Amino acid sequence: MLDDLIAAVGADHVVAGDDPSVADLCADEALGVPAGTPSYVVWPGDRDEVAAVVRAARAAGVSLTARGAGTGLSGAATPDDGAVLVAFARMDRILEIDPVDAVAVVQPGVSLADLDAAAGEHGLTYPVHPGETTASLGGTVATNAGGMRAVRYGVTRSHVLGLEAVLADGAVVRTGGKLVKVSSGYDLTQLLVGSEGTLALVTEVTVRLHPRLPVRRTVLAPFPDADALIAAVGRVVSSGLEPAVCEYLDGPTMRAVCAAADLSLGLPEDLVDADHLLVELAGRRQERVDEDAEELADVLGAAGARDVFDLPTGSARRLVEAREKAFWAVKAAGADEIVDLVVPRSSMAAFLSRARAAGDAHGSRVLGCGHAGDGNVHLAVFQPDPGLLEKTLHDVFAAGTALGGAVSGEHGVGRAKAHALAEFGDPVGLDVVRRLRAALDPDGVLNPGCALR
Amino acid sequence: MLDDLIAAVGADHVVAGDDPSVADLCADEALGVPAGTPSYVVWPGDRDEVAAVVRAARAAGVSLTARGAGTGLSGAATPDDGAVLVAFARMDRILEIDPVDAVAVVQPGVSLADLDAAAGEHGLTYPVHPGETTASLGGTVATNAGGMRAVRYGVTRSHVLGLEAVLADGAVVRTGGKLVKVSSGYDLTQLLVGSEGTLALVTEVTVRLHPRLPVRRTVLAPFPDADALIAAVGRVVSSGLEPAVCEYLDGPTMRAVCAAADLSLGLPEDLVDADHLLVELAGRRQERVDEDAEELADVLGAAGARDVFDLPTGSARRLVEAREKAFWAVKAAGADEIVDLVVPRSSMAAFLSRARAAGDAHGSRVLGCGHAGDGNVHLAVFQPDPGLLEKTLHDVFAAGTALGGAVSGEHGVGRAKAHALAEFGDPVGLDVVRRLRAALDPDGVLNPGCALR
Repeated sequence: MLDDLIAAVGADHVVAGDDPSVADLCADEALGVPAGTPSYVVWPGDRDEVAAVVRAARAAGVSLTARGAGTGLSGAATPDDGAVLVAFARMDRILEIDPVDAVAVVQPGVSLADLDAAAGEHGLTYPVHPGETTASLGGTVATNAGGMRAVRYGVTRSHVLGLEAVLADGAVVRTGGKLVKVSSGYDLTQLLVGSEGTLALVTEVTVRLHPRLPVRRTVLAPFPDADALIAAVGRVVSSGLEPAVCEYLDGPTMRAVCAAADLSLGLPEDLVDADHLLVELAGRRQERVDEDAEELADVLGAAGARDVFDLPTGSARRLVEAREKAFWAVKAAGADEIVDLVVPRSSMAAFLSRARAAGDAHGSRVLGCGHAGDGNVHLAVFQPDPGLLEKTLHDVFAAGTALGGAVSGEHGVGRAKAHALAEFGDPVGLDVVRRLRAALDPDGVLNPGCALR
Repeated sequence: MLDDLIAAVGADHVVAGDDPSVADLCADEALGVPAGTPSYVVWPGDRDEVAAVVRAARAAGVSLTARGAGTGLSGAATPDDGAVLVAFARMDRILEIDPVDAVAVVQPGVSLADLDAAAGEHGLTYPVHPGETTASLGGTVATNAGGMRAVRYGVTRSHVLGLEAVLADGAVVRTGGKLVKVSSGYDLTQLLVGSEGTLALVTEVTVRLHPRLPVRRTVLAPFPDADALIAAVGRVVSSGLEPAVCEYLDGPTMRAVCAAADLSLGLPEDLVDADHLLVELAGRRQERVDEDAEELADVLGAAGARDVFDLPTGSARRLVEAREKAFWAVKAAGADEIVDLVVPRSSMAAFLSRARAAGDAHGSRVLGCGHAGDGNVHLAVFQPDPGLLEKTLHDVFAAGTALGGAVSGEHGVGRAKAHALAEFGDPVGLDVVRRLRAALDPDGVLNPGCALR
């Protein structure tokens, strides 16, 4: 296979998987998924090289795992031992920003930050904004990444209009295009988004862009408890105010986030440990955003907020950024696992309560924050004992799915949650997934350890 | 099979397919797809009855076609001769309007109009609004219906959060839920949306709702030519004004639409035959919508509009409704076929020009209107000679797909455009579709004549 890989991408772009220089590439950021040792790491330079790599690995009966920036939180980019790790760092060109159609065409190795900056030169934005903007477009497509702005703009899935991808047999498929809607047979774009490298390796992504909104206002509202806060979220969403950010942070998470960012909001001490709702409004005109901020304060006050703080621009920006980095704050604080179940928005309070009870039952500490507008709850679980950690997580997944939720809202299944999906997913749906996967990858070479168990 | 069908749904709900009482059910509104003669028409009352019907037909080796309201324009609900036609008229209950999560759960036979009215009681709306609001939810899911408001809200695909569906083997799959985002394995919801009854029969639909916007303003702008109009559409979309409707009508279509609605807009005679852009703004506050209407007029004027008419509410409503019924107007005018290709928004003018040239080359008359904000061009082709009609259509599909377009933006492939998809679709993608279909329906019992050739 080595000869074939070298023929595919050139000797400069193949490294043995046990070479110390590639150690950092052999895992993503998932806390509970150990690094693998691939047979080789390869860096293809274009689509045809990707196809040649796929054919080479398949001919040798070796599996392939795609890797973008490695910022994933579910282990989808962590190779199995012996696999070929396909790194997309060289395929990092923005091929086109088309301001007339408001779309961008990029290679999978482009980072979110670079794409958004390039869009910004045309007054546009790519609003998919998970915490880590070094994430690659290819990786965000694979996991259907979300983030804080999904409450207004939707997730990756809402933005991907077309893909070019290499299938398990090396064939190249093109789906969609610069088309904001289409109804011409099965939507293969949507099938590939979120498939975590198990159906194809994406080699080009076409996404829609949005007009950049110049004005922002941010408010922070402490609530007496999570129930009141979650009820307020429903009112904010139904108000038509269209918040750009609508985040929940419990007291301990707020403390950790502010400490990690060295940020003092000057909140009265008795409010710091409250349940906090952080809402950002964005718009085209200052006076409208100001008017909406007043309306928002009224909505939050009527819903039982203990106070509503209008954050100065600098503090607001830093708090939003620090919230985006909450994963790093809880990781630094020693969290043993993080999960991001999604539940119906109205069930968030019940879920939080049951998740904490699950933690209590097993002696685990459970902290919560999350994209409240989306019902996407991020929990940090502190429990050094592996057995107790597993029991805690089991009960958390059971609680969330019993409320009509799913095992992940945006991090994906990967290797980290394949067992949870197998236990709590719809069994008929899982069988459908198995059949689809077998139809497109009969030899099981595309990321076989990922997403299914 | 008859005994099994009767056992499944009861003798009162099975009728022979050649019974005159069911003649109206044996075709949809597609102009070029003749009615079929099913073996039986059945009306299941619930999910389990649907599953029993599927098992009965499969055991007999007979295919099944689902039918909602029959308003489709691609023949996806037209049964093949001998098939079992599964009519969803009895499964027409709105199971839940959940104002807290802003979702509705409905049976597939519910009409768009009934759902929107029920949502309206909670200050919410279901904004998917193709011309025909008697369309059923199940049918709109099958075709991924769009409509005039897609430019702001997106199409059916953007709204479906979860499904319950019966697979070809009679198993019941549940996908998604009251979850505005999810990343937990392949998105089977999105795979089923737009699959036109070829992968499963949908028995329950969960959709997201939006706050109802109380204020509307509508302007009509005639342009010197389609190029200028299409360029103006790009500016409107990038302005951030977020139009609720953004429609193109050529002069003859405008005349036909106004005549069909008995509507006089009082336009100067020299402007009636211009290319018209119809834009509706909607919002929460009158003063903002008024301000936006002024900004819109400036944008349109700067883009070369010959004039900008602020339509009185009554006329605006009637014009928008008449535009929604444009299909009926051109059908009444004797159109022989209608198509709804989608192209990149910026390519609409080029496409219109090439489509008309294709008409001229074959002696066909080609009228155009369409969802300009989406690049979705609806063409009415007048050509009584079948051979010349086929040549015209071939050249129109060739022109649209050469510009990066797809054969349908919202009507679907069905039986009417299966040949066009086969000729102009991505061949690798079509092969993927074949493999997916074979994986889920190995015996080919679900609407086999539809979407693939």
